[in-house]
Amino acid sequence: MTTHLNKKNNPTMVDISKKNNTKRLAVAQGAIQFSKNTFKKIESLKTKKGEIINTSIIAGISGAKKTSNIIPLCHNIIIENIDIDISTKKKDSLLIVTCYVQSFGKTGVEMEALTGVAIACLTIYDMCKSIDKKIIIKNIQLLEKKGGKSDFFKSLDS
Amino acid sequence: MTTHLNKKNNPTMVDISKKNNTKRLAVAQGAIQFSKNTFKKIESLKTKKGEIINTSIIAGISGAKKTSNIIPLCHNIIIENIDIDISTKKKDSLLIVTCYVQSFGKTGVEMEALTGVAIACLTIYDMCKSIDKKIIIKNIQLLEKKGGKSDFFKSLDS
Amino acid sequence: MTTHLNKKNNPTMVDISKKNNTKRLAVAQGAIQFSKNTFKKIESLKTKKGEIINTSIIAGISGAKKTSNIIPLCHNIIIENIDIDISTKKKDSLLIVTCYVQSFGKTGVEMEALTGVAIACLTIYDMCKSIDKKIIIKNIQLLEKKGGKSDFFKSLDS
Amino acid sequence: MTTHLNKKNNPTMVDISKKNNTKRLAVAQGAIQFSKNTFKKIESLKTKKGEIINTSIIAGISGAKKTSNIIPLCHNIIIENIDIDISTKKKDSLLIVTCYVQSFGKTGVEMEALTGVAIACLTIYDMCKSIDKKIIIKNIQLLEKKGGKSDFFKSLDS
Amino acid sequence: MTTHLNKKNNPTMVDISKKNNTKRLAVAQGAIQFSKNTFKKIESLKTKKGEIINTSIIAGISGAKKTSNIIPLCHNIIIENIDIDISTKKKDSLLIVTCYVQSFGKTGVEMEALTGVAIACLTIYDMCKSIDKKIIIKNIQLLEKKGGKSDFFKSLDS
Amino acid sequence: MTTHLNKKNNPTMVDISKKNNTKRLAVAQGAIQFSKNTFKKIESLKTKKGEIINTSIIAGISGAKKTSNIIPLCHNIIIENIDIDISTKKKDSLLIVTCYVQSFGKTGVEMEALTGVAIACLTIYDMCKSIDKKIIIKNIQLLEKKGGKSDFFKSLDS
Repeated sequence: MTTHLNKKNNPTMVDISKKNNTKRLAVAQGAIQFSKNTFKKIESLKTKKGEIINTSIIAGISGAKKTSNIIPLCHNIIIENIDIDISTKKKDSLLIVTCYVQSFGKTGVEMEALTGVAIACLTIYDMCKSIDKKIIIKNIQLLEKKGGKSDFFKSLDS
Repeated sequence: MTTHLNKKNNPTMVDISKKNNTKRLAVAQGAIQFSKNTFKKIESLKTKKGEIINTSIIAGISGAKKTSNIIPLCHNIIIENIDIDISTKKKDSLLIVTCYVQSFGKTGVEMEALTGVAIACLTIYDMCKSIDKKIIIKNIQLLEKKGGKSDFFKSLDS
Repeated sequence: MTTHLNKKNNPTMVDISKKNNTKRLAVAQGAIQFSKNTFKKIESLKTKKGEIINTSIIAGISGAKKTSNIIPLCHNIIIENIDIDISTKKKDSLLIVTCYVQSFGKTGVEMEALTGVAIACLTIYDMCKSIDKKIIIKNIQLLEKKGGKSDFFKSLDS
Repeated sequence: MTTHLNKKNNPTMVDISKKNNTKRLAVAQGAIQFSKNTFKKIESLKTKKGEIINTSIIAGISGAKKTSNIIPLCHNIIIENIDIDISTKKKDSLLIVTCYVQSFGKTGVEMEALTGVAIACLTIYDMCKSIDKKIIIKNIQLLEKKGGKSDFFKSLDS
Repeated sequence: MTTHLNKKNNPTMVDISKKNNTKRLAVAQGAIQFSKNTFKKIESLKTKKGEIINTSIIAGISGAKKTSNIIPLCHNIIIENIDIDISTKKKDSLLIVTCYVQSFGKTGVEMEALTGVAIACLTIYDMCKSIDKKIIIKNIQLLEKKGGKSDFFKSLDS
Repeated sequence: MTTHLNKKNNPTMVDISKKNNTKRLAVAQGAIQFSKNTFKKIESLKTKKGEIINTSIIAGISGAKKTSNIIPLCHNIIIENIDIDISTKKKDSLLIVTCYVQSFGKTGVEMEALTGVAIACLTIYDMCKSIDKKIIIKNIQLLEKKGGKSDFFKSLDS
């Protein structure tokens, strides 16, 4: 049922040798939940907020490239595009991190997109934790996937 | 306000040279939300589920050790203990990942505990994504922190 | 004679640009020699032994992926399949680690298979060293290789 | 103007998905400037100098392979050839490091060649710093680039 | 004479076990030389220039932390502070990168400061190379060192 | 019985927080077995053999520093000394790799010494595999350990 265990029930790196090279893309998203007060402080940082955003994007891109080094059974792949967007959802005191990854190969890039989101969120957390210890990283999930056996699309009621 | 930017508003690795070496510990937690159906399937895997849990713990421990390599402004530190627990919350179709990290040094280990949780969650996601593409990684947060300027404890209504 | 030194006798990463992409596979094997007593203890661990095996397989797979980062003149390559098997040879008090690696590319995957074996063996050693300091890692060798200039097969009298 | 920022002026990994796979090569060079005295000492080391050269070549090759792990927006790529040469320019008390990198892919290998040079130079510095604290790493630059939109060649008046 | 070779003239990681733990700091500097035209373009980028600077600082800090992973004979050490400054020297069309590193330990942090400078410079190069292929990374050198056997200070006629 | 599993039989990084900092050293050894013919060829390489030896020592030292990144449950530690010796045992067509590691800390350095040996052996294998596909890496074992609960010494009948 799970493809990551072999016949002896031991973990295995899935055999992709018979799959076709196709264009693969994935979009993942996550959020960082601040208290109202902390969120206001961060919004008021202006230039400083820009630096936090930039640093987190760099960390997320670097993190997405490290996916096969971090997640034990992920294949190392050639990534052709990584783009991370961090937007503000003021009414909910949220920063929203979206990571887009594209590749041409035999396996999907969902884990790369999800890892990019997770690392960017952790980096925002790190840079804001001196202000607030109650930050929560929320709802890291796949939004879209193309290429391979089946496409996938999840609509969010935002 | 944020300690990770210097006077010129550029990112900086915080100067910890004047802080004291103290015992530091941190506990972080996160959850993986499955659909009811998927959760039942995973529960029914038995041995296979054990393999998934074991693999995710190994990934989380390895990931916590890589924190300073993954999060740009984290200090590299000597970690004295990492323990990860993955438990089941059947009624909510959740797996709960808890990571405990201990160190003796000049800076806290919150990011190590949070990174351990995030990587363990991503690894569970990876091993279950062929069954379900709608898995959500939820509520990665700090539960406890000791050592340094101030202690912290968050009670969860579980 | 050795292809890893250039005309000035300096180490070089072999030029593979003119080779063809072909299906490549390699199988390597190694053994961990325990004393009779230690072997019995490990066999009696049951569940615990399973955890040791699982942890070592994960380490070996992760290690095989790191080959070009560990062995200075190895090319970084796209790996399509890694499978590690750990079996028991009771009469000799041995655990036998076998690593199978497959790729499609311009260079062989022998070093990936051998590195996977070595790292899995070291991980078993690490987890058992508190029981026995006289463990020996033995006979890490190539069993099979396909693709490239010449195939290779070694029969073991097991 | 710079291709490494997206429409929101945030750093991005350039989208290479629509580019063609072509043969790519790059040659980069840099120099280590010693004082006359230090240079004489190093020349007189003979065998030891050979060890320093060898160690630096290995570090440079390993470093070139790590480029996408070190430079945040570099793509991870398959490298087909890395060759590093370290020569002596006696009259100027210089060691000259030249790094040649070849690949077949959608993006150039300039950064790999430049990173190989920088790491080899830093390694020479490290091994000689106990003799001289005034060593200078000079003039790391691209000499040649083939493949992709445009070729490039820079003649040095050496 | 060089401390990085043992009695058999083989490379060795210097034995620091008998040295004292002391406060160590090092400052290194390097420059990126642009053509006048390119420099003007970069200056005119404003916000975009800020992003390039930020990205390079993050890369340099991350790079300094990776020193012992990049330079073969460097000890892994606990770093207590890394700060990177990138300033403009308009009349010479230069960006100047300065990296300050502090530690408390048995060995100096020169290589960490120099590596931080080199990686930050390479990152600037990477982000500007689509504008100009003739950029030169110049004069990576140690400016100051404290702690250990001897202090060092180099005045630059800037 | 094994210290690397917690009460729930899951892998854990052993808690060393209550142990004392002491001087730790470990010596490990392994061998590379060549056929008589291959061994003669390697001996006749002279300068080239020196390059192979040097490259393998650098790989082994770098590998020993990566131990906690390669072996999942190993602590990251500060290493104060790594020395690798590669000698020739002509009558048995063997190269013998010995790795000496020293640290001051709360946990032993056996795994660092064993990993250094394994990586140096794999590097020799890599550089000689074009000559001979039947090379065997043999008898990687601990020779000596000091510091911590108990010392250990194994005499080899060489």
